[in-house]
Amino acid sequence: MNNTDKYKELGFAKLDFERSKRRGYPEAVFCECKTNEQLIKIFSAFKEQGSNVIGTRATIEQYNEIKKHINEVEYNEKGRIITLTIKPIEKKGEIAVCTGGTGDIPIAEEAALTAEFFGSNVIRYYDIGVSGIHRLFDKIDDIRKANVIIAVAGMEGALGSIITGMVNSPVIAVPTSIGYGSSFKGLSALLTMLNSCAEGMTVVNIDNGFNAGYSANQINRKIAGV
Amino acid sequence: MNNTDKYKELGFAKLDFERSKRRGYPEAVFCECKTNEQLIKIFSAFKEQGSNVIGTRATIEQYNEIKKHINEVEYNEKGRIITLTIKPIEKKGEIAVCTGGTGDIPIAEEAALTAEFFGSNVIRYYDIGVSGIHRLFDKIDDIRKANVIIAVAGMEGALGSIITGMVNSPVIAVPTSIGYGSSFKGLSALLTMLNSCAEGMTVVNIDNGFNAGYSANQINRKIAGV
Amino acid sequence: MNNTDKYKELGFAKLDFERSKRRGYPEAVFCECKTNEQLIKIFSAFKEQGSNVIGTRATIEQYNEIKKHINEVEYNEKGRIITLTIKPIEKKGEIAVCTGGTGDIPIAEEAALTAEFFGSNVIRYYDIGVSGIHRLFDKIDDIRKANVIIAVAGMEGALGSIITGMVNSPVIAVPTSIGYGSSFKGLSALLTMLNSCAEGMTVVNIDNGFNAGYSANQINRKIAGV
Amino acid sequence: MNNTDKYKELGFAKLDFERSKRRGYPEAVFCECKTNEQLIKIFSAFKEQGSNVIGTRATIEQYNEIKKHINEVEYNEKGRIITLTIKPIEKKGEIAVCTGGTGDIPIAEEAALTAEFFGSNVIRYYDIGVSGIHRLFDKIDDIRKANVIIAVAGMEGALGSIITGMVNSPVIAVPTSIGYGSSFKGLSALLTMLNSCAEGMTVVNIDNGFNAGYSANQINRKIAGV
Amino acid sequence: MNNTDKYKELGFAKLDFERSKRRGYPEAVFCECKTNEQLIKIFSAFKEQGSNVIGTRATIEQYNEIKKHINEVEYNEKGRIITLTIKPIEKKGEIAVCTGGTGDIPIAEEAALTAEFFGSNVIRYYDIGVSGIHRLFDKIDDIRKANVIIAVAGMEGALGSIITGMVNSPVIAVPTSIGYGSSFKGLSALLTMLNSCAEGMTVVNIDNGFNAGYSANQINRKIAGV
Amino acid sequence: MNNTDKYKELGFAKLDFERSKRRGYPEAVFCECKTNEQLIKIFSAFKEQGSNVIGTRATIEQYNEIKKHINEVEYNEKGRIITLTIKPIEKKGEIAVCTGGTGDIPIAEEAALTAEFFGSNVIRYYDIGVSGIHRLFDKIDDIRKANVIIAVAGMEGALGSIITGMVNSPVIAVPTSIGYGSSFKGLSALLTMLNSCAEGMTVVNIDNGFNAGYSANQINRKIAGV
Amino acid sequence: MNNTDKYKELGFAKLDFERSKRRGYPEAVFCECKTNEQLIKIFSAFKEQGSNVIGTRATIEQYNEIKKHINEVEYNEKGRIITLTIKPIEKKGEIAVCTGGTGDIPIAEEAALTAEFFGSNVIRYYDIGVSGIHRLFDKIDDIRKANVIIAVAGMEGALGSIITGMVNSPVIAVPTSIGYGSSFKGLSALLTMLNSCAEGMTVVNIDNGFNAGYSANQINRKIAGV
Amino acid sequence: MNNTDKYKELGFAKLDFERSKRRGYPEAVFCECKTNEQLIKIFSAFKEQGSNVIGTRATIEQYNEIKKHINEVEYNEKGRIITLTIKPIEKKGEIAVCTGGTGDIPIAEEAALTAEFFGSNVIRYYDIGVSGIHRLFDKIDDIRKANVIIAVAGMEGALGSIITGMVNSPVIAVPTSIGYGSSFKGLSALLTMLNSCAEGMTVVNIDNGFNAGYSANQINRKIAGV
Repeated sequence: MNNTDKYKELGFAKLDFERSKRRGYPEAVFCECKTNEQLIKIFSAFKEQGSNVIGTRATIEQYNEIKKHINEVEYNEKGRIITLTIKPIEKKGEIAVCTGGTGDIPIAEEAALTAEFFGSNVIRYYDIGVSGIHRLFDKIDDIRKANVIIAVAGMEGALGSIITGMVNSPVIAVPTSIGYGSSFKGLSALLTMLNSCAEGMTVVNIDNGFNAGYSANQINRKIAGV
Repeated sequence: MNNTDKYKELGFAKLDFERSKRRGYPEAVFCECKTNEQLIKIFSAFKEQGSNVIGTRATIEQYNEIKKHINEVEYNEKGRIITLTIKPIEKKGEIAVCTGGTGDIPIAEEAALTAEFFGSNVIRYYDIGVSGIHRLFDKIDDIRKANVIIAVAGMEGALGSIITGMVNSPVIAVPTSIGYGSSFKGLSALLTMLNSCAEGMTVVNIDNGFNAGYSANQINRKIAGV
Repeated sequence: MNNTDKYKELGFAKLDFERSKRRGYPEAVFCECKTNEQLIKIFSAFKEQGSNVIGTRATIEQYNEIKKHINEVEYNEKGRIITLTIKPIEKKGEIAVCTGGTGDIPIAEEAALTAEFFGSNVIRYYDIGVSGIHRLFDKIDDIRKANVIIAVAGMEGALGSIITGMVNSPVIAVPTSIGYGSSFKGLSALLTMLNSCAEGMTVVNIDNGFNAGYSANQINRKIAGV
Repeated sequence: MNNTDKYKELGFAKLDFERSKRRGYPEAVFCECKTNEQLIKIFSAFKEQGSNVIGTRATIEQYNEIKKHINEVEYNEKGRIITLTIKPIEKKGEIAVCTGGTGDIPIAEEAALTAEFFGSNVIRYYDIGVSGIHRLFDKIDDIRKANVIIAVAGMEGALGSIITGMVNSPVIAVPTSIGYGSSFKGLSALLTMLNSCAEGMTVVNIDNGFNAGYSANQINRKIAGV
Repeated sequence: MNNTDKYKELGFAKLDFERSKRRGYPEAVFCECKTNEQLIKIFSAFKEQGSNVIGTRATIEQYNEIKKHINEVEYNEKGRIITLTIKPIEKKGEIAVCTGGTGDIPIAEEAALTAEFFGSNVIRYYDIGVSGIHRLFDKIDDIRKANVIIAVAGMEGALGSIITGMVNSPVIAVPTSIGYGSSFKGLSALLTMLNSCAEGMTVVNIDNGFNAGYSANQINRKIAGV
Repeated sequence: MNNTDKYKELGFAKLDFERSKRRGYPEAVFCECKTNEQLIKIFSAFKEQGSNVIGTRATIEQYNEIKKHINEVEYNEKGRIITLTIKPIEKKGEIAVCTGGTGDIPIAEEAALTAEFFGSNVIRYYDIGVSGIHRLFDKIDDIRKANVIIAVAGMEGALGSIITGMVNSPVIAVPTSIGYGSSFKGLSALLTMLNSCAEGMTVVNIDNGFNAGYSANQINRKIAGV
Repeated sequence: MNNTDKYKELGFAKLDFERSKRRGYPEAVFCECKTNEQLIKIFSAFKEQGSNVIGTRATIEQYNEIKKHINEVEYNEKGRIITLTIKPIEKKGEIAVCTGGTGDIPIAEEAALTAEFFGSNVIRYYDIGVSGIHRLFDKIDDIRKANVIIAVAGMEGALGSIITGMVNSPVIAVPTSIGYGSSFKGLSALLTMLNSCAEGMTVVNIDNGFNAGYSANQINRKIAGV
Repeated sequence: MNNTDKYKELGFAKLDFERSKRRGYPEAVFCECKTNEQLIKIFSAFKEQGSNVIGTRATIEQYNEIKKHINEVEYNEKGRIITLTIKPIEKKGEIAVCTGGTGDIPIAEEAALTAEFFGSNVIRYYDIGVSGIHRLFDKIDDIRKANVIIAVAGMEGALGSIITGMVNSPVIAVPTSIGYGSSFKGLSALLTMLNSCAEGMTVVNIDNGFNAGYSANQINRKIAGV
């Protein structure tokens, strides 16, 4: 196979076409620092190649510009995600996506939509944080059924620890930048999660719903035997 | 009692109706990361339930939108607080709310309004910081009469220590993000307060007037025998 | 009253004899940076004055040296506390001191012994952290009976939030330096506690069991009507 | 079931006997802040109960003291781990444990021994860091076969990103405190790992080989269909 | 030579005319904190003196204002650079400028344009980051030919280490502020680069493409025997 | 003297009229967090009292509003300073205000105008930073003549050290927030100045030209025998 | 004058003999990172030159080794200072050195001894911190008489602000590393002091009693007309 | 070539024999985290291979143990470096190694010895820091002759900026951990160097004399035409 098959050279970017073979899943595009022109070229190249592609941290403006050129793209505003789904994906297994509060929902949606795009069923449990812990306890038996659990929380970020201590599935914790003062834009929640004494929980970057969704999907599908 | 009694499921939020019984006081809503639509649903549910509710860090725009649907809500712009007061609350005891400077007043008002909402009398002592300490000394005999003292200060944040050293009431210190340069948005004041050698003072998060008011009220009312 | 009555001048220190009148409680001595010679002079002066005194962060070596000169002093090694109790104190009310883990016990003991020295009954609930939350739930009804609750925890420091969400008493949270890596010697637990969404909890410095015990006692005794 | 069945009250600790049922695996003991006397009581209680137990961050001195009372305990000095294996565990699946350098081996061993204790086969790939990347490439086909990969690295911590970009298994990255100067005791490696653009990698606390091994085992055994 | 020859006094600035003689290259102007009026005076003085000059971190607005007075200035928007080229410069040797991702291109362009302005040939290799490492490997033989390599990367910043481990030319690493959450505006990439175990790489400030380009040019031209 | 003489109670502020007697100089008003209404009341009260007053970090909008009510106020836009000069001040002695670069001038002007307002002669030496050190050497003999030297610098902040090593007058260093990347908004310059090995230099907060000017004036006038 | 007159070349050090002429005072030696052999050579060279010299942060062991070769050196253990006084110095003016607590005394002594060595009278006011503020008030009239005040404090570091607000002399604040937990080895006190709203106070590095003493002496002697 | 030729598998380490071919220079061993047994195996393997090798951050104890098995190794205690020189290296070109103070010499020696080992002539200029800048000026004409300059400095770390502003050779700056208080173990010097406005200087990790020496040698030899 020559390079033209392995990746497409766009000058400002080199699209990793071999990725699907090597890593098992199509590529994702981080839209935040890209111009409209760059995004249109990237999505067009994937469309041409017949590949699915997901764009994260995309604004509605970016979506509208791409939409003018590639009619098949779809947008989820809450999760800030653009998807181009050319090949249908069969969803397998189950992931639970939980949030501490209402403010954490955008990041939770980024995780949930990513996991769905790559092939997982997702059930959402929102606003079950530790300040009213009976809300979590009402749901815990359902949450336990998931192959993988994503715990999204800002401020003190204790949600992941509490859940992890009550289940036997792997938990991926996502700190969010929700909070103020000494939350230091998510640093507080990040440190809480890294220092959890509840083993079986791993952590991703602040506000990185995408990686949580990707990683959870990867584990879930392997457990589901895909 | 079934779950519908304990909390109301709104999808994006689960309202903690049991809270008043469990914790002694009605719920508070952190407005900062919520959409207008979400806030209207939340306030409506509390109104329906016949509960008082307080919304913090609310903008005037959020208030105006809620007001269109729930005429009983009131707004205090300085403290950025929306209240819905259905059941009247009898105020007990006394809390002193002090600030180092004029810039600390919005956070002090958040504390004062919260304490009043939950049932305390509040007396305000503003701009009595350490750079002109005779202003504090003139007031100290009055401040001493309060069951609980809230000390709100930014920059170097020394106000709490000075007051604590002169009284025998518990002091709750609130660092504010007032300042610049190495104040690091309130970190300097926070560290000053945590490291105070004047025992009897505890600390809340930077700019967290709400928790200071809530905690002071809780202590004050217990001292007042409620 | 002249200065000799208000404080005693030792050159390296000025002992605050007026304190008991002004603040309601006798003085405490931070032993960590003091020489044996300084400590002996300080404890002797308080003995002479007929005052109780408590020394914190004291080593067994410091205690042994003081003991040679002042036979009445007592030492608690776990809490690193020296006490000289000349006037008996009647204990009032009740404080619950809780820890997340076994490693937090020394700081919890510092808090508990301080509260007892200044006049509170203390009940200890150790190793009830969030990784096995049923242990906490078994005790929560007892913990709720206390006038004030002290929650001592290192690592992720979530204990305080969980307890606060289930009680209507004021909670004082003490982060400890237990942990490693990104616990950053207690910073992680401190931030968790400051950013708790469970209102009614205030925070003291990392490992500052003394201030937690002092503040809790002050509140407890006022609630108990002393 | 009453509390005596759910956990054993030792005063300073409450042993979580229900854990194995709830979480799928026996308990682990963090030895670092415990006295010999406490450790002997804890290991004795587990032995009495007929449970396996693993002790982490244990010194040789701690082991020797426990060994005097419980002959069955074993010690691995490199990984600082004490194990008491009463019920045999059948190992399933395969985990790859990789290190960037030789200095990362103790943490890698903590991870590997933990994963083996809880029931995984482990293959070790040490000293394959990015400064001589052909060493990694020689092994990558073998590493790809593992169900889960643990990447242990200090200093710049890039190992995890490189591996993750070349495999389709989940990767758990462990930053280590190896390094000096601006490595800030592992902070540099932690941040590198959290900010990786190679999705599918999650992170644990600095030097937390135990949690990496526990989480990897949990995922591996689920993939292996246990 | 008197002072008027060595620098020109503008009141708000003193232009270093002796620089070219002392340091080998004409002066550079940091435009970010300067007013239009100041910039016009500075560029006019250099033009009068017959000197080339480069302005960095310049906005299109600043350029437009200067252009009104000095027609010879040129602007590169991607690299935010204004140049005034009065004396032609002969380009020597070769520098490779590489980026991890597309978002790093503006800083890479700042570096590349600077190096070209001061007299180097530059070849650009963009979007060859570690998440799809085969893209780098395809280019490495070309990159090796350069006298100096500049590696520009944000997020985890591992690009520089990987390249340095495969070449025998000096590498200058430029961390960028691309990323979010715990990237802390480039701090993560900076620490990664400083802690690289691949010797032969040195580092410049976050987003400082200018210094990377300047330093690389200086080394390249000396190697090229200029 | 009663309280009305010592300070004026405005509710939101308590104006320190005794200050001039106690501290030797009239009061200063930090305008940044004050409303127009508050500023008008404050300046009016000082005018009524016949006191001079200086307002720092004031916007042109704030000035315009005050000007409508108090015609005597004056504004310096570069230094963001409002002054009301009712009693004339005789300037004594001499202070040198130096900057590293052009971007540091606004903070330098804040310092210079403050020192002039309180009664010092000021000579300005701008853009004499260490990258072209001959510019500093040309001026050093003049700088040496000042009673006090203020060194204002951002980025690496080395200016103060260099000057201090060459003079025998006290130097006050002001770090500025000029810079980017790892300058961390002035932290880099602050640390450089605090760690200077050139003894005789003291430091103020980042961008705190006001305190530098105040302190320098205080020392200068005492040296000048006022 | 040739170089041999301006400084003495020792290979590992170049002694600045011209300093006394240029800066007004003899040189100081930072002993912390020097070997005994280096210190002996340095002190011998100054003795030979007939210069006074002061060594800071010196251990008793270093002193004993130097003493074997240069009998005239003297040592103050509390301040960790070695002095060689060949030419007598006449003390002028007056400096007040104040501490918050007893633990700050070593740094205060470093400041006091330095100021005395370079020619100032020093009066010490120890243990007058803010937790018992009447102790400070008793002394304030005496403190006001000094030309310069040094305020040494750890923990919250508020002493300097309080004093500065009550005097019209310049204050130099020295943060100390006394404290624990979030004092972060003096960072808390440093930030407090930098952010003081009491203008007229400048700050030196944590624990840098030497620079405080040097700077205070320099100002004091200029005020005293030397 | 098969893998046995490319690297030697020792289990705990994989020795990079291909390195010399790929990178131009033999391998270096970071001794700090290695056991004696590991070091002996590593040095023996290199000896067997006939390769030169350099060990950094080695203790005298490590050296003594290796010496027992490999008589040819040599040790430099000041620079903490072990060398095994089997093939002689011809030194080319010239590097200047400068330090700010005497305490920086160990790191400077690490840099100098590394550069000499890899084939450069080195001239040392020690104790020429900015507090007595005439010492630097006396040497600057000699320093200018070097192809590359290494500037080693702790505390404020300004040395590199001053030198860079006066020469036209590339400068590599090494921050050292010399200092105390807010030097934060070299962070202050690191930030100073990264934020230098003197272009042409690049930076390595705190105390990383090895990388400075390696990088300087690499550049020097290329300039020297090797």
